[in-house]
Amino acid sequence: MRIALAQLNATVGDLQGNQRKILSALKDAQQQGADIIVFPELVVCGYPPEDLLHKKYFIQHNLQSIKEIARAVKDIVAIIGFVDSDRRKHLYNAAALIHDGQIKSVYHKHELPNYGVFDEKRYFKSGTQLQIFMVGGYRLGVNICEDIWVNQSVYDQQVKVGIDLLINLSSSPYNIGKPAARQKILKERAQKGSCFLACCNLVGGQDELVFDGCSLILSPQGKKIGQGRFCQEDMIVLDLDLSQKKKKYSRLSQSQRQLICSEFSQQSKPALSQTKRESMTAIERMYYAIVLGTRDYIHKNGFEKVVLGLSGGIDSSLVAAIAVDAIGAENVVGVTMPSCFTSKGTRSDAGVLAGNLNMRLIEIPIEQMRKSYSVALKDEFAGLKEDITEENIQARIRGNILMALSNKFGWLVLTTGNKSETAVGYCTLYGDMSGGFAVIKDLLKTKVYALAHFFNQRHRKAMIPQSIIDRPPTAELRQGQTDQDSLPPYAVLDQILTGYVEQHKSLDQLVRQGLDRNIVRRVIELVDLSEYKRRQAPPGVRITSRAFGKDWRLPITNRYRYKK
Amino acid sequence: MRIALAQLNATVGDLQGNQRKILSALKDAQQQGADIIVFPELVVCGYPPEDLLHKKYFIQHNLQSIKEIARAVKDIVAIIGFVDSDRRKHLYNAAALIHDGQIKSVYHKHELPNYGVFDEKRYFKSGTQLQIFMVGGYRLGVNICEDIWVNQSVYDQQVKVGIDLLINLSSSPYNIGKPAARQKILKERAQKGSCFLACCNLVGGQDELVFDGCSLILSPQGKKIGQGRFCQEDMIVLDLDLSQKKKKYSRLSQSQRQLICSEFSQQSKPALSQTKRESMTAIERMYYAIVLGTRDYIHKNGFEKVVLGLSGGIDSSLVAAIAVDAIGAENVVGVTMPSCFTSKGTRSDAGVLAGNLNMRLIEIPIEQMRKSYSVALKDEFAGLKEDITEENIQARIRGNILMALSNKFGWLVLTTGNKSETAVGYCTLYGDMSGGFAVIKDLLKTKVYALAHFFNQRHRKAMIPQSIIDRPPTAELRQGQTDQDSLPPYAVLDQILTGYVEQHKSLDQLVRQGLDRNIVRRVIELVDLSEYKRRQAPPGVRITSRAFGKDWRLPITNRYRYKK
Repeated sequence: MRIALAQLNATVGDLQGNQRKILSALKDAQQQGADIIVFPELVVCGYPPEDLLHKKYFIQHNLQSIKEIARAVKDIVAIIGFVDSDRRKHLYNAAALIHDGQIKSVYHKHELPNYGVFDEKRYFKSGTQLQIFMVGGYRLGVNICEDIWVNQSVYDQQVKVGIDLLINLSSSPYNIGKPAARQKILKERAQKGSCFLACCNLVGGQDELVFDGCSLILSPQGKKIGQGRFCQEDMIVLDLDLSQKKKKYSRLSQSQRQLICSEFSQQSKPALSQTKRESMTAIERMYYAIVLGTRDYIHKNGFEKVVLGLSGGIDSSLVAAIAVDAIGAENVVGVTMPSCFTSKGTRSDAGVLAGNLNMRLIEIPIEQMRKSYSVALKDEFAGLKEDITEENIQARIRGNILMALSNKFGWLVLTTGNKSETAVGYCTLYGDMSGGFAVIKDLLKTKVYALAHFFNQRHRKAMIPQSIIDRPPTAELRQGQTDQDSLPPYAVLDQILTGYVEQHKSLDQLVRQGLDRNIVRRVIELVDLSEYKRRQAPPGVRITSRAFGKDWRLPITNRYRYKK
Repeated sequence: MRIALAQLNATVGDLQGNQRKILSALKDAQQQGADIIVFPELVVCGYPPEDLLHKKYFIQHNLQSIKEIARAVKDIVAIIGFVDSDRRKHLYNAAALIHDGQIKSVYHKHELPNYGVFDEKRYFKSGTQLQIFMVGGYRLGVNICEDIWVNQSVYDQQVKVGIDLLINLSSSPYNIGKPAARQKILKERAQKGSCFLACCNLVGGQDELVFDGCSLILSPQGKKIGQGRFCQEDMIVLDLDLSQKKKKYSRLSQSQRQLICSEFSQQSKPALSQTKRESMTAIERMYYAIVLGTRDYIHKNGFEKVVLGLSGGIDSSLVAAIAVDAIGAENVVGVTMPSCFTSKGTRSDAGVLAGNLNMRLIEIPIEQMRKSYSVALKDEFAGLKEDITEENIQARIRGNILMALSNKFGWLVLTTGNKSETAVGYCTLYGDMSGGFAVIKDLLKTKVYALAHFFNQRHRKAMIPQSIIDRPPTAELRQGQTDQDSLPPYAVLDQILTGYVEQHKSLDQLVRQGLDRNIVRRVIELVDLSEYKRRQAPPGVRITSRAFGKDWRLPITNRYRYKK
């Protein structure tokens, strides 16, 4: 049996575009002589469609699309994710099994994830049926994403009655360590079921999520025999020798046994060229996941160019590098907006960086604007000392300038704040937080350095100048300011944030890790008090198991303060 | 049996504060001779606690709190909402039945709402047991909020086996029509069960939600015999003659029948003073719900004063009126920020309004700042026409000024955008959208006029000057501009928005309602394209069945465009 996995980059809501991609992959697989082709979960409408699912006409269009696709399926079995609807208008996260122009059967996902970034119980009903699909004389089990992760799920029923091949349609988002975790669980499932296992995963960015692909085909021994690319569209075509192992099968009832196609077409199969996939380090994956998430947010939202403030610091330098990798240097504009607090060093570094990246740099000094605010507020602020107010005004002028360029030229503004800052609120609402996409929002400062290092290493050159990497981080909003005046060293801060934010650890647990109680208490307080800022932040690529996005739903009004 | 309903205003996370309120209500009810007292759903931790529930130590503190409360419960049965945790660390939305210093039994909510603004399946497991509680010889059924709304739920089991009194703990948020809908369903349930029914509902604002109270006690005939105030804390104490009706009871198994107290204390009961509750119109309810939501957001987040831009338009005028009602005129500061496009009329109207409301008004002209941006951007914008860019710069300068005052003086900035503007994106990110709380975010423009009218009527005076009400709406960002240059008349716009946003109606459905296809298409397109703005908007009071908050989860990246 020749199997194809179509690891596509679908776009939420783009029923026509997704349909075109599906039809093109179908054609390609048929030309390569595939007997069966598998697509990702909900590929017809994109994932996650969220409240689009509440629109009845959206469901209808999606059903129309899967019917049109079915008509194009000839001598191949296609398994395609879509939204099914029953007579009572209940919705199901479903897979259509199509052959010979017809939808022969439909599987409904059993296990609906409703945690982290997932809200599937908000929309779907769970499937309840055990169905085994007969394809060319073989027994096929089909399930969807979460179904294969959960213990005592439909997967166990499927392997208990006995199947030759298990097919899993996924839209499983990336986070650090996720591709390895996915591979581990799939390997266990193949071995436990003594069956071939093929998992086709979505690829692409969707708001804060990045789907990384890495589709997999495993032997009944759990050996990896095929793998899709990381964070790129891909098509994997492989021959599986399903006859190699004799199993015990349970008998199936009429309703459990569903015939999809009795035999495969006898067309001649062209030889397959096996492509070797290179493996990547964790840092590389992080980097390319952010690149893909950024590129897809820009392009899928109809933008061509982006603009960002280049401060001469490490954060904006890394964001510029990522943007250039995502959409090309010719589409990235940097703006340097010096004030009287801007050092010569940062100013010239921004220029060197832009030169290295071959991107355009605009300079717009903010001194006169800053003064005009001082004059306007003179009476109200008479007799009061300068404080964070004046610092924020500078940040907000810069935000306004970037937005003005965005408004005038249609460029998307990228923000450059990292996760450490976002966590403790070391950022200005409507200032440096102004923009459409927050590229490194989920990257702790210590990881920012790691990715900058990787970028330079890849180019075998200090593309991001060493002076930028070496300079103590500073917002340059007052004379001689550095981040460490207000915050603990980033190595310490990031350790606390990893524990408190990503793992929900308590103050006591963090102190038991060896961290200073007063510092931990202060950081926790800052995180708790900054919720209102994060609520108004733009989306950005999620790369950890808990980002400040859909997987972080803390109330703003929250008097819980655990102090001891 | 004397019953008390403690309609409290709890705060999310404020375990100590909520405990104090609970203990004080307990004392009060005991002094009034109550045999039983009922509190709202999750009153110990506030509702909804959201991801605080992911913190194990938060759960522990909540358990500690309910135990401490239990110790204070003497000659009364107290039924109190809290978060229960089992040995496997599964969480339950629970009610403790407490008597004589001890938690005698615990009920776990069966039906977990996971739609609209609710995400309970994200946190809780469903209860499964049928328990009937024996109190002073009577049979009590207890359930929680959603349990009584759903058909074929635990409620049906409870009334089937027969109960004398059904108690429902709720944290049921307000929206237009909700109090009436709640009363209707409770009436049906009392009648169907032939039992007294007492529902204690939470009161107070929590981020975007407002809980309206309106707790109810109904006779087995469905007659309203007691009602809590709308949007105010309250304590209802009533005598119920549970012996008045003989019913058929089913026998209960050992595990179903749970003894809480065998007889009530024989203390003498003081006479009760019945207070008459006045009924309110729908408009009044809307108004006072927004007042409460605004006051609670301000105070529960630790602010005393607020600041807002007064443009001389109807939106900011209404917001000022609401703010004054919420926290007092002495705590509300208005800022008028004229530019060369500001008419004399709006300028003087803002002054008259501030005078009428007796609030402080600051004037900060923006002309010089506006010019400084023009100069700074002169080279980049050379040869290009003025457009929305320059309009947005003005709005953003005003946003910056308000934020500067906020930063310097610790005032919360209230934004003044209405739902019609927010829906179609007729507002400026980081401009008029800058602020901590969006008071009338869920109020369509036509409703803004209705509430302004109500406010003036209540004062028997044009507190909001008639000239403000009569002037065609304008953003005054260019010469001679009015809203209707860019938008259809608000009566039409609001009809489309009600259908498209609040009811998920399609283009075709709206056209069948008699609306113009081209106008509807344009409005739908504007709503779809403004998602990115709304994502960065501050929270505001939810008053409809679908606001732009937790009950609106549309993707930003969304290529679905239904055009015909």
